[in-house]
Amino acid sequence: MELVKNAWYVCAWPKEIRAGELLARKICGESLVFFRDDAGEVAALEDRCCHRELPLSKGRIEGGTIRCGYHGLRFNGEGKCVECPMQERIPPAATVRKYPTVLRHGWVWVWPGNPQLADEGAIPEIFARNDHRGWTSCGDVTFVKGNYQLISDNLLDLTHETYVHSTSLGSQHVVEHPIHVSHDDRSVTVQRLMPDHEPAPFWKAMLFEKLGRHVNADRWQVVNFIPPANIVLDVGVAPAGSGALHGDRSAGVEGCNLNAITPADDESTWYFWAFSRNFNQADADLSRKILQSVAGIFDEDKDAIEAVQAKMKEQPDRETMSLVTDKGQLIARRLVKGLIESEHTRKASA
Amino acid sequence: MELVKNAWYVCAWPKEIRAGELLARKICGESLVFFRDDAGEVAALEDRCCHRELPLSKGRIEGGTIRCGYHGLRFNGEGKCVECPMQERIPPAATVRKYPTVLRHGWVWVWPGNPQLADEGAIPEIFARNDHRGWTSCGDVTFVKGNYQLISDNLLDLTHETYVHSTSLGSQHVVEHPIHVSHDDRSVTVQRLMPDHEPAPFWKAMLFEKLGRHVNADRWQVVNFIPPANIVLDVGVAPAGSGALHGDRSAGVEGCNLNAITPADDESTWYFWAFSRNFNQADADLSRKILQSVAGIFDEDKDAIEAVQAKMKEQPDRETMSLVTDKGQLIARRLVKGLIESEHTRKASA
Amino acid sequence: MELVKNAWYVCAWPKEIRAGELLARKICGESLVFFRDDAGEVAALEDRCCHRELPLSKGRIEGGTIRCGYHGLRFNGEGKCVECPMQERIPPAATVRKYPTVLRHGWVWVWPGNPQLADEGAIPEIFARNDHRGWTSCGDVTFVKGNYQLISDNLLDLTHETYVHSTSLGSQHVVEHPIHVSHDDRSVTVQRLMPDHEPAPFWKAMLFEKLGRHVNADRWQVVNFIPPANIVLDVGVAPAGSGALHGDRSAGVEGCNLNAITPADDESTWYFWAFSRNFNQADADLSRKILQSVAGIFDEDKDAIEAVQAKMKEQPDRETMSLVTDKGQLIARRLVKGLIESEHTRKASA
Repeated sequence: MELVKNAWYVCAWPKEIRAGELLARKICGESLVFFRDDAGEVAALEDRCCHRELPLSKGRIEGGTIRCGYHGLRFNGEGKCVECPMQERIPPAATVRKYPTVLRHGWVWVWPGNPQLADEGAIPEIFARNDHRGWTSCGDVTFVKGNYQLISDNLLDLTHETYVHSTSLGSQHVVEHPIHVSHDDRSVTVQRLMPDHEPAPFWKAMLFEKLGRHVNADRWQVVNFIPPANIVLDVGVAPAGSGALHGDRSAGVEGCNLNAITPADDESTWYFWAFSRNFNQADADLSRKILQSVAGIFDEDKDAIEAVQAKMKEQPDRETMSLVTDKGQLIARRLVKGLIESEHTRKASA
Repeated sequence: MELVKNAWYVCAWPKEIRAGELLARKICGESLVFFRDDAGEVAALEDRCCHRELPLSKGRIEGGTIRCGYHGLRFNGEGKCVECPMQERIPPAATVRKYPTVLRHGWVWVWPGNPQLADEGAIPEIFARNDHRGWTSCGDVTFVKGNYQLISDNLLDLTHETYVHSTSLGSQHVVEHPIHVSHDDRSVTVQRLMPDHEPAPFWKAMLFEKLGRHVNADRWQVVNFIPPANIVLDVGVAPAGSGALHGDRSAGVEGCNLNAITPADDESTWYFWAFSRNFNQADADLSRKILQSVAGIFDEDKDAIEAVQAKMKEQPDRETMSLVTDKGQLIARRLVKGLIESEHTRKASA
Repeated sequence: MELVKNAWYVCAWPKEIRAGELLARKICGESLVFFRDDAGEVAALEDRCCHRELPLSKGRIEGGTIRCGYHGLRFNGEGKCVECPMQERIPPAATVRKYPTVLRHGWVWVWPGNPQLADEGAIPEIFARNDHRGWTSCGDVTFVKGNYQLISDNLLDLTHETYVHSTSLGSQHVVEHPIHVSHDDRSVTVQRLMPDHEPAPFWKAMLFEKLGRHVNADRWQVVNFIPPANIVLDVGVAPAGSGALHGDRSAGVEGCNLNAITPADDESTWYFWAFSRNFNQADADLSRKILQSVAGIFDEDKDAIEAVQAKMKEQPDRETMSLVTDKGQLIARRLVKGLIESEHTRKASA
């Protein structure tokens, strides 16, 4: 399994981990159980009792600890056994692995790798708009039966909008405009600017929400990638000629599509996504409409990605050919490959 | 996977490949997509875009070509990319494999092996009655979760009719009459003649359709096999003593059961079958009754064959014992083995 | 697959093998078919025709023999072919394996190993109460997707009652009392005595059935294990202080939980269980209530065991840690390991 283990991954929306309940979720090949301790802080443990291997998620919460549902061993948020019903002495080996977690940018993050390397400062700042005052965000999580890199590939080449999302984001204009790709050793950016055209249905509707009338638009797409698989799409439209493609977006509508792509294992993915906007922020009905639209759009992606995954599994050793629009993907995959190789080197020298 | 690749296989009834639609079907271990080009001719391509591996069957037909549903590459019936939306230059590598197809004897045939060896003359003539003026044919395709040779084994030993089809084709008379087996290096024939008996239910009904009365019958079964798995059953009954077993079948009813047995892979099969008759040809109601009867009979075979397949998978290395009635099967399997070995030899010397 | 093959295993309740019917069941990795011969005796054959591998269980009973449903070969209860429809001479190889069976203690037993070693005297006497005049027994069979030793582990450490069966057999009292473990080279016994307490719900109800009033109880649990996986729980309660914990149980209610744990294969198990009692024996309504309660209790165990099996399959090489209450299990597993090693030694020297 070729996964980057030493990285922060979004593992849940905070509301998914409810007081008194247990949430089982596989992250990066590790089976975890999430719960809230007495202080309401999220804790993440290996989802397996060290005694007779029952998943701890089949137990119950007692005072901020997990009671195993088989023989009653009780573990705190650090993974330490604090009660062993049939014997007074708790064996030192009675522990389960604890995983570092952090609440940041409106999401819960977990570090599945070596906990000594877990630096909170490494959580990507590009997701700040998920809980920023100037932005209103709505989102969800989609389980995709496909390798996580198929999702980042998808987002790094928005050409697919024309064919996969023809009734919402796509139009002939997308494929008619070139992309500009730039990168350094920690990020990739793919940009496409589309001046003066009749906007695609989704953006046409957004612009109408703000302006109350239909106009031709200038459209921008800026895809920012940070490995292993954090992607923000800085996207939007403004009335044609209002200056948006030269820096002044004030007359238009800006969206920010946040994508935290977390491997469940190497064949399936928890795809956390949100759409943030800085217009009509208090309009809850608009938030519902956007949530529904974006969920439908990502279901179209899921359908394509799962078909590709199945095809790759059927014929694992086939080569593919690339086009000019794949440049962002290819660089992104090179960065991820570098991280995986560094982990192997670190392990080998440890 | 031990399959004969250099052979013509029935892949569809013509009506299954509709204008403007895509049909995905695995044939002989290859995942194919079938469609009709502008001229209405059937084309068969590998069901995988060479760019990012989406099955082409998830795309759409545009003017006799397939537009990939992911990034919009468009392929013609030869498998050549004729449009690459984001770049003017179409890379030479942008092709998918094309498979030879032919319409013959009322079926669509495909050649999954080396296209240079695809000789239309090799399509077996024994299926001519499927679209012959003097015969009326009705049939369907049944997907069987079993190796294709289990189906040819089944048809080459009709002893099973007594036990598997006891309410239609079977009776004690079948097992009471010996078989006569003959063969050359390209075919096997198994014949059984059953004079003067009360016919089995299916044939009793057929004879009544023609004569309007119930009589004792002479019955013939002539099974013709051509590898890899083409089988015609020349079968029928005539009033006892009317000379049918000595060449004059005119007083009776003749059926011709056509079986084109196409491996999907080595564990499952597309079983194409038809029943042709030369009596009461214009009677559409009779055709419907026959179609229903034969479908029911083949469902009984499917049930037995799938149980045998499951048992063989559970215990792959078990030996079986054979009886005198297996002689046709054993010769047929020897012919198929010869073809497979020839393919290996050809590859090794290529 | 690490299973003890040379042992008697319960394979069915007698009522499950009905005259004229065929019962297919996998036992200890062997696919068997059970039926009754003309004399009504149970016979067990390999569930596979030696000719073309159809499971014999898809055939039909004819006069105490099985007629294969494919080509009509007929086998008697010894596995010998007694009719071969298409030829007079029956080939000597036309036999299927026959397995020794015995009716004993109200169950049908089968010996999946070397038939020359099948000694009826080896059937454990501890199950005698399943059809003893002084006891009334009710029970069933539960299919569990878990290794058989997970079930014996479960029964050898009743600590789990407090957590898995908290609404029936469990209470805080169980985990507050120590166990006493003894063993020889053919058996293990785990005993727990719990004086003077408010009985757990199941036992409270049983005691009320006999006494007509609620009282505090002395409770005993004596678990007897005989490898590979035969377990009897000698359990009950009596009014506190009535002497039950010192030998005189006459004032209380005695239950005898009989557990015959038969591997289907190494990942799944036929779990035969019964509950025998020596009080209110003729009360059929009480039998129904007990059957329903015990079935519900074992469904709770099944749920835990299947979760453990899935976890072990996910991570096959993980170590576990043991507690003092696991002593019985650990000895039991050592005895089973010894039997498996003996079988390997016997085979190697044979």
